[in-house]
Amino acid sequence: MKPGRSTAPQVGRGAKVRAAVHAATLAELLDKGYAALSVENVAQRAGVHKTTVYRGWKDRDSLLTKALAEHIAMDIPVPDTGAIETDLRALARSLVQTFTSPTGQAILAAMFTGAAHLPEIAAARRHVFGDRLARVESVVTRAIERGELVRDTDPAELFRTLAAPIYLRLLITADPVDEATADQAVRVTLAAARAGALRSAPDGEPATG
Amino acid sequence: MKPGRSTAPQVGRGAKVRAAVHAATLAELLDKGYAALSVENVAQRAGVHKTTVYRGWKDRDSLLTKALAEHIAMDIPVPDTGAIETDLRALARSLVQTFTSPTGQAILAAMFTGAAHLPEIAAARRHVFGDRLARVESVVTRAIERGELVRDTDPAELFRTLAAPIYLRLLITADPVDEATADQAVRVTLAAARAGALRSAPDGEPATG
Repeated sequence: MKPGRSTAPQVGRGAKVRAAVHAATLAELLDKGYAALSVENVAQRAGVHKTTVYRGWKDRDSLLTKALAEHIAMDIPVPDTGAIETDLRALARSLVQTFTSPTGQAILAAMFTGAAHLPEIAAARRHVFGDRLARVESVVTRAIERGELVRDTDPAELFRTLAAPIYLRLLITADPVDEATADQAVRVTLAAARAGALRSAPDGEPATG
Repeated sequence: MKPGRSTAPQVGRGAKVRAAVHAATLAELLDKGYAALSVENVAQRAGVHKTTVYRGWKDRDSLLTKALAEHIAMDIPVPDTGAIETDLRALARSLVQTFTSPTGQAILAAMFTGAAHLPEIAAARRHVFGDRLARVESVVTRAIERGELVRDTDPAELFRTLAAPIYLRLLITADPVDEATADQAVRVTLAAARAGALRSAPDGEPATG
């Protein structure tokens, strides 16, 4: 798993370097905070030359944005359990696990404190969320096919409803965030979906999608 | 309404100074950002002496925390329209108006960027939310009395469910935040409440409260 192993083919080596650099970025962030994050430190920790990092990443904000997006995408797999309730529970619990881990806490801190004023970080927040949204759409599509959700259920609205109470607790109220939080988010989301409150065009207007 | 009017009784003058200092704090924050916020600048803008500010507020973080808490408490009145749906709609729309106004945007910026690392600001976030929660509890109590909500509906969980999608859009997804956002939050919250998903003790366990 070492990034420098020379027997790996080119494409594998590129992927390994990327993984090592992203891991080093998050580790530096976790250890030293955003202010001390630098291309030099990341390169040293990843065991690669500084110029290698500059070839693949423009600067430290590019490192941070890409590392965050990839870490969160990998950390939250798309479940396919055969039922919407267990799929959503797996998703919500993954989200909770991600953001209550030490790395997740460092990610939240980076996204919302020192680095939060950067347009790149605001873009990363949207990007990370949008990326997860695209990946989770199949969960809703399959539930519609199984007849568990009405046809015009809006995947984006459903996923926002699922994630919102978790982020609220993490960012605002500082209430505990655990499996019960995840399961409660599922209950609320499913109740809303079943009542028709998560349709593409609410208020009884015909859906145009 | 000038804070310095000498004909006002003592208690009125105290309240007016407080209002002027809090308004000046928010105006300074809006104009110049958190980094440039100082007791001197606030005093000057409020038209009071620096020592007056220091008597009532420990430092600039104390100014900021108290100004935020008071501004948001005053900005979001507790509705009593006679029906839970219109009460919640009024609440959610107030929340949207508060945080999409220029002052509200400055408040969000202060709460989540430069100043966010301060324990005082994290405490202010919790305090502001907790304060609103206490004030909104009567909305739920009256709805239970009218038979619109089940008896063990948890006001805290209901208000978190109402506010969560609004904060998610403001802080993460950068989707538009408007009256439709507020009304959608009400639909989701009422659907969840009516399905029994916002009870004090979910999962069918008996409520102990």
